[in-house]
Amino acid sequence: MAGYSITKDDYVKRLRRIEGQVRGLQKMIDDEQYCINVLTQISSVTRALQGVGLGLLDEHMRHCVREAAEESPAAGDAKVEEAVAAVARLLRS
Amino acid sequence: MAGYSITKDDYVKRLRRIEGQVRGLQKMIDDEQYCINVLTQISSVTRALQGVGLGLLDEHMRHCVREAAEESPAAGDAKVEEAVAAVARLLRS
Amino acid sequence: MAGYSITKDDYVKRLRRIEGQVRGLQKMIDDEQYCINVLTQISSVTRALQGVGLGLLDEHMRHCVREAAEESPAAGDAKVEEAVAAVARLLRS
Amino acid sequence: MAGYSITKDDYVKRLRRIEGQVRGLQKMIDDEQYCINVLTQISSVTRALQGVGLGLLDEHMRHCVREAAEESPAAGDAKVEEAVAAVARLLRS
Repeated sequence: MAGYSITKDDYVKRLRRIEGQVRGLQKMIDDEQYCINVLTQISSVTRALQGVGLGLLDEHMRHCVREAAEESPAAGDAKVEEAVAAVARLLRS
Repeated sequence: MAGYSITKDDYVKRLRRIEGQVRGLQKMIDDEQYCINVLTQISSVTRALQGVGLGLLDEHMRHCVREAAEESPAAGDAKVEEAVAAVARLLRS
Repeated sequence: MAGYSITKDDYVKRLRRIEGQVRGLQKMIDDEQYCINVLTQISSVTRALQGVGLGLLDEHMRHCVREAAEESPAAGDAKVEEAVAAVARLLRS
Repeated sequence: MAGYSITKDDYVKRLRRIEGQVRGLQKMIDDEQYCINVLTQISSVTRALQGVGLGLLDEHMRHCVREAAEESPAAGDAKVEEAVAAVARLLRS
């Protein structure tokens, strides 16, 4: 099993944990915790989200791109373009 | 009012919206939506989190750094270092 | 032609421009220009480098992944993993 | 001396090394080296540039913000805003 592959259950588990972390951030703000600690926690949530994103990218390349490429090279290319555009959005977010 | 300044209420509102977006991501996975669409939504949540982070950084620099610097230059420097280290973590997350 | 595809000549042209921008940064520091202006220029060079990276990623997915996948699914998967790991490094740099 | 502080000489040395790395990237493309290796090197150059950017941010906060704040709170706030906007550009590049 690949380093970035995630099963559907894994995605949901990870996203539930991220949801809990975002609720934790609200509590940190409510409790007026030190802003640098909140910032550190934001970096950690961002990194967790990026991890989910990398899993989806792995999936897209492993399945969607491949299946499309088997249909026709042009269909494969279209999926590659979508993936690269998605990575560009991740990089710039 | 500065471009990145956020009030406490604003932070909580933004984080609630982000929490809702993360729940939306779980639903997208559950519904087996197209992975590129989920990825695009992840970029949008990441950007929203970074926006909260920039607000906290603004606050830290506007208040914590300044108050510490009024105490002593060394205290001010320590707060600056904390802020730059926090930005480094944001950049690398 | 795809949005992120770059020819070999294009890569070299882009990298020469980036090299010139990095020399420009040295001159900005030498001339003691305002640090925020130097920072803005650094963002612009970083973005240009990421653009080259996205071009390479496009190429990798369009050619290396596909050719490897035609050999064997396992070879294709290995190339996908390499690509996702490279995106992870880009995101965290 | 703070973790991210850099002297003027250090900036120039770092930027010269980055310039050399960008020339190295051109050679990698010319030699048609494996795209993932070029991508890895791009991440390393990006990280080196971000390091220079963090040094400049440290300097801005340590000197420009403080001196402006001594003049007037409004002048200090204006410098903080510039800094946060610069971090936003770094994050999105």
